[in-house]
This record gives sequence, structure tokens and C-alpha cells, in this order.
Amino acid sequence: MSLVVQKYGGSSLGDAESIKRVAHRIVETKKAGNDVCVVVSAMGDSTDELLDLAEQVSPVPPPREMDMLLTAGERISMALVAMAIADLGHSVRSFTGSQAGVITDTSHGKAKIIDVTPGRITEALGKKHIVIVAGFQGVSQGTKEITTLGRGGSDTTAVALASALEADVCEIYTDVDGIFTADPRIVAKAHKIDRISHDEMLEMAASGAKILHLRCVEYARRSEMPIHVRSSFTPKEGTWVLPPETEGNQDMEEPIIAGVAHDASEAKITVVGVPDEPGRAAQIFTTVADAQVNIDMIVQNVSESETARTDISFTLPMADGQVAVEALMKTKDEVGFESIQYDDQIGKLSLIGAGMRTNPGVSATFFKALAESGINIEMISTSEIRISVVTRADQLDDALQALHTAFGLDSDDGEAVVYAGTGR
Amino acid sequence: MSLVVQKYGGSSLGDAESIKRVAHRIVETKKAGNDVCVVVSAMGDSTDELLDLAEQVSPVPPPREMDMLLTAGERISMALVAMAIADLGHSVRSFTGSQAGVITDTSHGKAKIIDVTPGRITEALGKKHIVIVAGFQGVSQGTKEITTLGRGGSDTTAVALASALEADVCEIYTDVDGIFTADPRIVAKAHKIDRISHDEMLEMAASGAKILHLRCVEYARRSEMPIHVRSSFTPKEGTWVLPPETEGNQDMEEPIIAGVAHDASEAKITVVGVPDEPGRAAQIFTTVADAQVNIDMIVQNVSESETARTDISFTLPMADGQVAVEALMKTKDEVGFESIQYDDQIGKLSLIGAGMRTNPGVSATFFKALAESGINIEMISTSEIRISVVTRADQLDDALQALHTAFGLDSDDGEAVVYAGTGR
Repeated sequence: MSLVVQKYGGSSLGDAESIKRVAHRIVETKKAGNDVCVVVSAMGDSTDELLDLAEQVSPVPPPREMDMLLTAGERISMALVAMAIADLGHSVRSFTGSQAGVITDTSHGKAKIIDVTPGRITEALGKKHIVIVAGFQGVSQGTKEITTLGRGGSDTTAVALASALEADVCEIYTDVDGIFTADPRIVAKAHKIDRISHDEMLEMAASGAKILHLRCVEYARRSEMPIHVRSSFTPKEGTWVLPPETEGNQDMEEPIIAGVAHDASEAKITVVGVPDEPGRAAQIFTTVADAQVNIDMIVQNVSESETARTDISFTLPMADGQVAVEALMKTKDEVGFESIQYDDQIGKLSLIGAGMRTNPGVSATFFKALAESGINIEMISTSEIRISVVTRADQLDDALQALHTAFGLDSDDGEAVVYAGTGR
Repeated sequence: MSLVVQKYGGSSLGDAESIKRVAHRIVETKKAGNDVCVVVSAMGDSTDELLDLAEQVSPVPPPREMDMLLTAGERISMALVAMAIADLGHSVRSFTGSQAGVITDTSHGKAKIIDVTPGRITEALGKKHIVIVAGFQGVSQGTKEITTLGRGGSDTTAVALASALEADVCEIYTDVDGIFTADPRIVAKAHKIDRISHDEMLEMAASGAKILHLRCVEYARRSEMPIHVRSSFTPKEGTWVLPPETEGNQDMEEPIIAGVAHDASEAKITVVGVPDEPGRAAQIFTTVADAQVNIDMIVQNVSESETARTDISFTLPMADGQVAVEALMKTKDEVGFESIQYDDQIGKLSLIGAGMRTNPGVSATFFKALAESGINIEMISTSEIRISVVTRADQLDDALQALHTAFGLDSDDGEAVVYAGTGR
């Protein structure tokens, strides 16, 4: 008998009918002989409706009260899912994040899970109840305030609970069939990935793949928890995200390249004419960090010997652009740069695959494919299992298509094509 | 400085505008130099919406999950009220029933408060925060399950918290100006009562006056907590519900009669032809009690000597009629009665006033007034401070009007008219 943790998102819980469908799915898993613990998000648009209400009473609501408000959303969906399961004749108990032992820090709206003490869940599972847990929420250590986890919070709850309960798998249900080699809305021949390592998934998520949030993958990677990303609309297998040393994973004929991710949500800031002296770059990045802005790629140009000045470019979430520019402008005299350029017409493109570590020629194929398609590259960054470039935003789709084809990822039948050889 | 507990019902919290209005009202109380703890119900129709959702997923939802679901309603309203107060520049903290220390038994849907341990509330008030508490909910002792208190739950929460915090007053805000001498929708000359004792209010509530729930008055009476029932739409004083020995209350020129209450929600069951033997009535009322039905008035006719049989009539909530009749029919042979008559075309009328204890002639005036208006009386029951009768439903309004006039309660200017003498 296995212990299965499942997570259903808001799009799978839009109305009473969807909730009943999810309940059937959960009961099937139970009837197959598993213990089942289910994490749910708030129903469909309900979080947006609560945000609307909040905005009507206060333009800047206290974060503590915002968390009180928003946690009502999962409370409603978890109770309804539990009722639907009970209606199918199975015993069931729902628990809030606090009751489930999801212990967080005190950062309202973006709390981090610092411990999971699932005593009540273990007890309920021991009594053979199906367990439903509210995702996205927890309770702060010591102060016992209700917190929310912010973006990706429900997926992270599921993985954290699965880890604490030592579950056999964490199933993340979504409205697509799994993780694809590229966004199928852009690349028609993209296909579902059957297996991918935590490392690769981490790079995919960090590079703009939307299905799993970075944070949830980080948690799963740390605890080596297998994730099964699959559709709540079909019984088909989805994508397994597995530790590299998983039984049966090492021998498999692994493709060198897992997929191509893209991200159109970033902008580029160029600080022009920075004096080429030690400490200037540090000043710039400290300023940006102090403004709570995360930066992604960085390029520093070669200094012009005549002026002893250089340009520093970096990318950041478009939503943080204004804050970062304002923060930097305040330091103009102190740092001594000439001007700031802001550009939100960029796109980021990333090729991900653990196989590229040991396969020469990947970079050559990468840049050749882009060059032949007339794509201009503005910035480059690499890790052991990823190459990312920044292009013009309007060339992003073409670039994605070109790379997908060049690395043999195109598929007509929905099955993975192995790029070359047997991988590592 | 005083500690004021306020309670706002769902009709005062219908939308964002109403919530802002309530927030202003709360802040005014704080600015007047009081510590303020506020109990809120769920917004307007939100509880009905949640019940609708529940019905869509399950015809008979588990009570535990129903409580999980419904408690989301107050959670939403308390967070929004807190946000609106913060927006006015005041520090505020909201707490769920569980966080506020409202400890109940384990009866989901109709839990009873068995203890209040308001440590977090006291601490927050000590820090000069305005405190908002979700009404209608608590947490069960030992098992730590979320419970709801059932009808009148938010008023009861307010009185229970006020008692535990040793507040100076518990203000119950509603959409009317206070407690009236009769329902002003029926008796045009009904007027607001300025002061009424807990005992009288208890009889009023038990006799059908809708403004305060019986349960909340019982709690206030036990803890001698003054209640001020008032409108959330005007700053006018409402009705004070006070212990009899309240300073200044004994000397006041108290009317003999507090008011006339009516109740059109009861039905009458007559068990016909009950053998006139010891134990038969006990069998009947045990059967009804086992069906969880509360009965109100009881009349046993004089036995017919020929047949040695009698009829027993009692009133009960109309909603429980079917259950009671079915339960009784199952005992027909065992008890040996002949038949059951069910009548839901009745109305109950009650005259309440502590003054009638010591004033002779109240009963005479009562029955004379009804007789002169051609009202037929079917059942009578009395307490020291109340006379109740059952009439035909279609005579209820006329009877109410007749009594209101006969006891000098009619008013043209909205001020109380003292019936006779100085009362006790």
C-alpha cells in the first residue's frame, strides 16, 4: 500500500461539478488501495473575488488581515471537496494549513515553510480517512498568526506535506497533460516529457516553464520527493519529476535535452557609463537587492579604455522594473554612472538538459540554429545543464521553434525523440 | 475608560460600503476613549451562498465539514472590517473564534460555549489594538475541531466574550432601533423600550421577539452583562437590557408591562383519546423529546369519565411538526391513543412585564381585551412575568393590537407610556 499526496489547483475546482469530478478521482485512488492526502487551492476565481473585496475597503490592507481573508478561499474548497467525497460514501476529514502543521515564518503574503508537523494528518490517515488539506496557508512559529505562502504556495504545500509524511509520490493535478518540451501554444510539435530530473525541472521552472513553480521543485529536489505532474481531466500518465538516482532512471535512454523554456515576462536594465572601478557593480546590485528586486542574468561590457567607463546590463521581472529604475536613479551621483536604459521588449530563451554536461557540440548546435534563423542574441548565461539567451521579444517564438527543431525535440506522435546516443 | 464589546450582524455588513460605515462607527467608539472588541457575523447573504454550494456537492454534508465551510463566512467579514479600520489609521487585529478562545462542546452546527479563554484578545487590547472576532464559531474542547454555534451564535459569542473580558457593556447592533413593545410592522403605535430587565427580555425572546436570541439573553442574564441593542444606522440610544439590581434601575418609574410578543412559527399537535392512566403523558413527551423536538405549551383536557380517555395538546416549532407526528404515530399501539391532529394555523401571543408579579388585575385586563375583540383562546400558559395564549393564526394581529392598546402601550411620539402607578 502506498501513501499518495495529490494536489488540485483552482482551475480543477471551478464549480460544484468540477469538485464532484475531483472527488471521484480521489476516491478512485483510495479504492486502488492507497492512503490519500489531498491538497487543494481555492476555487477558480474565488481568490480574485476576495482581492476585489479587499480593494474596495482599503487600498493598502494590512498583510496580516489579507492573509486572514485569502485563507477563507481554501477553507471553502477543502470543505466542499470533503463533502463531495463523503457523498460517495468514504470517510474524510479536512484540515486547515494550521491544523495540518504547516509551520511558516512570519512573512505575511509570502511566508516560507520552516517545518511541517503533520500529527493530525498522520492520525487521520491511520484511521483510514481520506485527508483534505488547505494549500497555500500555514501558521507562523511562535506568534501563531495565519500566513499565506504566496505564489506556488499550494504546490509547495503538497510537496512539503508529501515529504513530511514520507509519501511515495506527490501528484500535481493541472489542466495540461504534463511538462512539455516547449510551450505547445507556440511550438506545435512540442511533446510531453515522460521523465525529467529535479535538476532539469528546476532549470525549466527558473527559465519560465509555468506548470510547476520553482519553489515547489526546489523543495522536492531537497527532499528527493518524486512529483507526478498530470491532467485532472484524463487518467493518462503525465510527467514524472525524479531524483537522478531513482531506481530504473539511470539505465533509461535519457534524451540529452529535456526541453526549451521561454520567458516573456522579464525586462532589461542597462546602467550606462559606470566608472570602471572596484565596487561600482556591488553598489548597483546592492541597491537593486535592497529594493527587494530579484535579478536574473547579468552582462558587463568590456570597458572602453579611453573613458574608463563600462555598461552593466541585467534582467529582472518586468513588474519590478519601475521600482528598480527609481532606486537606481537615487544613487546616480554616488555611483557616478551616466544614465539608465530600460527595455521591456526582450524575451528569454533557455535550453535545458542534464545530458549537455557531457555532450560536446550542444553550444555549437544552439548558436548555429539561432544564427540560421536570423535571431540576434543580446545576452548569454549558462549553467551546467542550461544555456539561456536574451533576444528581441518579437523573435522569441521563432527562436523557440528553431531550437526545438534543431535539438530533435519535434514530434508528430507525441512521443519523445531521443536526440543522440544514450545520454549519460 | 471602558471596555466595549460590539456585535454587528450580517445585515450591517452587506457590502464594502456597509463595512466602511461599520468601521467608522467602531473607530468613533475607540476615539471616545474606549477599548473596543467587535464580534462580526458573515456578510449579508454569504452564508446562504455557502449553503447553496454545499447542497450542490452533497445533499447531506458531514456536519464537521459544514462547519469548516460556514466559518469561512465570518473569516471573510472580520478580515474586511479589520482592513477598513486600518485604512482609517487605527491599529487592529482580527481573530477567529478558535484564536479568541471560544471553547465549545463537539456538537457541530449547534455547539454550546463551555469556556472562553480570551488570552490573545486581552493581549491585543492591552496593546491598544482594536480587536475584531469572528462570531458564530469556536473550537471544541480536547478534539480541537472547528464548530459553529447555530442560531443566535454571533450574539451569544458577543455576550460570552463581553462576560469573559468583564466588559462594561455588550452592544448588539442591528437594523432596527431597539426592542419594541410589539412588532411595529403589525402594531403601528408600538414604541421602543428604553430599559428592560434580563428576565423580561428572556420571556420576550422565548415568546417570539426576534431581535435578540433566547440563548444570548440567557447568557447575559447568567453573567449579569448589560446589553445595549441599537441601530447601526443612527447614533440614537437603543434598548438597554439590564440586571434588575442595576444602579439607577430600581428607582426608575418602570412600566408594569414591557411589551407584547407574538410567534406565528408554532404548530399544535393534539393526541386524541389517550388512556387516562399514569405514565401515558410521560410516554408521549419522551417520544417527542427523543425526536429532538422542543415543545412549548401543553394542555391536558379533563378526562371524559365514560371512556376514561383524555386529549393532550402541545405546541412546537412548525418546522419540527412532521418529525414529531411520525415519531408519535410509531407509538400509537403502545400508548393506546386514538389519533393525532396536527394544526399549523395557530398563533401565540404573550404579554410580558415584571410588574405583573405585584399588580393584580393584569389577567383580568388581558382576557377582557381579547374577549371584546372577539378573539377565541385555545391554550393558556403563564409564568410570573408572562401570560401566553394560543389563538387562530388569522386573529393574531388583531389580538396583538388589542393587548397593546389595553395595556396603555400605544404611543404617538415614540416615548414609553407608563401603564399605571410607579411599578415596583
